[in-house]
Amino acid sequence: MGFEDTFKALSDPTRRQILQMLRSGRKSAGEIGEQFGLTGATISHHLNVLKGAGLVSDEREGKYIYYTLDTSVVEDLMAWLMQLRGGNDDEA
Amino acid sequence: MGFEDTFKALSDPTRRQILQMLRSGRKSAGEIGEQFGLTGATISHHLNVLKGAGLVSDEREGKYIYYTLDTSVVEDLMAWLMQLRGGNDDEA
Repeated sequence: MGFEDTFKALSDPTRRQILQMLRSGRKSAGEIGEQFGLTGATISHHLNVLKGAGLVSDEREGKYIYYTLDTSVVEDLMAWLMQLRGGNDDEA
Repeated sequence: MGFEDTFKALSDPTRRQILQMLRSGRKSAGEIGEQFGLTGATISHHLNVLKGAGLVSDEREGKYIYYTLDTSVVEDLMAWLMQLRGGNDDEA
């Protein structure tokens, strides 16, 4: 039931947009910041919150850090919402 | 994309438990408060947040107000998470 950080992370529209952007593949903080016209510090903050919530993972490659959408927490959330709705996986 | 209030409402563990409790049918604020050992003011606050997020609806019956789980927002969230995951409804 530890969805606190996940729901808090998802409550911000910029962070939801970052996740959408990562659907097409991993991106560096620079690429993400450019897209949103945000400073490095702001984008770092958002990426750290998403990472803390398990929604993105990062990997260093040379001087860049790449961020990837981690869908396992998304799956957990979907499972929780499905049982809340009262259905099951087959009905979704 | 107005999921702000929804995710904020869901970030609280007591509110998630209230939603779980409402799966079995509508309940009055008193019945909900009793279950959690919470004061009327605290339970009212949580129920108002859930109502503001569209996750519960209420109906007055005599001197009681009954709260019902509203699954339409839950469906919207699931749809959003599904497209984030990159699958579609049929695969869920």
